[in-house]
Amino acid sequence: MKPSAPVLAVTSGEPAGIGPELCLQLALGEPLPGRVVVVGDPALLAQRAALLGLAVDLVELRPGEPVPQARPGVLPVWPVALREPSRPGKLAVANAGYVLETLDVAIAACLDGRAGAMVTAPLHKGVILDAGHAGFRGHTEYLRDACGVDEVVMMLATDSALHAAGPAWQGSTALRVALATTHLPLREVADAISEAGLERILRILQADLRRWFGIARPRIAVCGLNPHAGEGGHLGREELEVIEPCLTRLRGEGFELDGPLPADTLFTPRHLTGVDAVLAMYHDQGLPVLKYAGFGQAANITLGLPIVRTSVDHGTALDLAGQGLADAGSLRVAVALAADMAGRGSATP
Amino acid sequence: MKPSAPVLAVTSGEPAGIGPELCLQLALGEPLPGRVVVVGDPALLAQRAALLGLAVDLVELRPGEPVPQARPGVLPVWPVALREPSRPGKLAVANAGYVLETLDVAIAACLDGRAGAMVTAPLHKGVILDAGHAGFRGHTEYLRDACGVDEVVMMLATDSALHAAGPAWQGSTALRVALATTHLPLREVADAISEAGLERILRILQADLRRWFGIARPRIAVCGLNPHAGEGGHLGREELEVIEPCLTRLRGEGFELDGPLPADTLFTPRHLTGVDAVLAMYHDQGLPVLKYAGFGQAANITLGLPIVRTSVDHGTALDLAGQGLADAGSLRVAVALAADMAGRGSATP
Repeated sequence: MKPSAPVLAVTSGEPAGIGPELCLQLALGEPLPGRVVVVGDPALLAQRAALLGLAVDLVELRPGEPVPQARPGVLPVWPVALREPSRPGKLAVANAGYVLETLDVAIAACLDGRAGAMVTAPLHKGVILDAGHAGFRGHTEYLRDACGVDEVVMMLATDSALHAAGPAWQGSTALRVALATTHLPLREVADAISEAGLERILRILQADLRRWFGIARPRIAVCGLNPHAGEGGHLGREELEVIEPCLTRLRGEGFELDGPLPADTLFTPRHLTGVDAVLAMYHDQGLPVLKYAGFGQAANITLGLPIVRTSVDHGTALDLAGQGLADAGSLRVAVALAADMAGRGSATP
Repeated sequence: MKPSAPVLAVTSGEPAGIGPELCLQLALGEPLPGRVVVVGDPALLAQRAALLGLAVDLVELRPGEPVPQARPGVLPVWPVALREPSRPGKLAVANAGYVLETLDVAIAACLDGRAGAMVTAPLHKGVILDAGHAGFRGHTEYLRDACGVDEVVMMLATDSALHAAGPAWQGSTALRVALATTHLPLREVADAISEAGLERILRILQADLRRWFGIARPRIAVCGLNPHAGEGGHLGREELEVIEPCLTRLRGEGFELDGPLPADTLFTPRHLTGVDAVLAMYHDQGLPVLKYAGFGQAANITLGLPIVRTSVDHGTALDLAGQGLADAGSLRVAVALAADMAGRGSATP
């Protein structure tokens, strides 16, 4: 007997952004894998559907009610109430708590087994900080704390089915880029990278490529921190003093690690062929190439959690909200990846 | 009467690297634009041709002798003598002076009008530093000092004819990425970026896109320094305090400037369409995506000089030298770009 598809809880994100309309679009395109349920305000979703003329039947689920199999034109919702009405493009500090509550609902469902994965639409960090949640760094760090783990790893991936959008040599290989540091001012990056920290990150990356992606023996290419990977110490010494000692020790345990390699030549066939994931040292070293290659069809994955979490690879796009111009491509990739990962990594509830 | 094609002086770079064999390959593939002359040791080139079985007729030119039109199988040479014999893959400190002399010969020819442009094969910074040339930072900075200018700008470009190698949306547009800082340890980048420095760089970029590329009204997209371009000050303040004031002032003079934009979303159709060049704040923010897109078919251009200089986008590849495995694609793009620029920007000698 075929097991039922995993439940995927999709948080609708910042209500003034494109998140709500992306969620509505999920019900209208190609059939979805898994049993998708959107976490958000049903009235908000209904208003946005009316504004854009989207014929979506919103089905509010009661506590304990099973999430049905996905059907075209139907969107199950786990309701969370807005704190005040939301208009497209207009941030409201009062609704920061609403955004965080949608996350809490999805996290709780994943932790207690009612959902197999969570998928997040974009939130707006600035308004959450302005609302007084000091130290809020983003989804990834919030999930880390909510799940009670010490460290998570942010990884972005293109869909392997999207090879036609990349250079011909890329073939049918998905591009995956994990980050050693995430949302830090650039001037803080060098001091944030330590041998012990890199080791923890590489252990998480290796373990989760096995568990959630089914890669028995992952091969990971590691970027240097400095241009030209420090060029033998002439352009910085972190490669010699921090990165190489870490890689040497882990190779001794059987890790398959390339590098530290210069970031600007790593993403070429000579170095990338056969690599399962790239570890970049910081945000703008790895993500421009990933998003160029993915062209709106990439998704974000948080590794190191006890649950599966994927996300869109873009922001709230306040200037596009409410106009029906937003592209749900990344959210669909995030849903597809979450379904794959939830199906592979653990029994579905 | 058609003016004669510009003379392009191609320096052969580190003798133990792939530079000499790339120069030989220039004479063997498709016909070259311009009148190419290689600057290097004729005996070295002859040895490498023999080693690899390349049938190239090396024609040593005497001082004052005109550079002939390119012919298949023939490679004119301006001779510079090695300090000691060179073997593929084996760096020799004694030959650092040879490498610098090839540059001096080409620079002098460009400055006095015997050449319309120079094109450089890769050198090895480490061996030049080890030879006692303290403070040597690379070709770009060496050319700046040799030409007596205060500031130059490093820009990499893919060939617009290569659009088939990039994502479909890229169309027939060349991707050009200039850098606000180049070969600096990452931890020094933030302090190296100043409002006055950015202004000088943007003036050079705008002027040279007009002069050498024939773009009457260049549109330049500028990256932020921090992830998400600082996200309104939450992830760093350099965008608010340094970059935006500079852009505002130059816009007042009529510059067409986008940004500061988050680097990870800049290289997507929404932001990149219609842009003539991107200004990245540092090396690994802009070059991984350029080289991914260019796939060995990108070239480096030094802006701000009184002469035209282009270069390969890769290193010496010591491990490939002497095996006939090196791909001359980037050198051919550099030669083609140099011919274009020399033909557009100034009368050929």
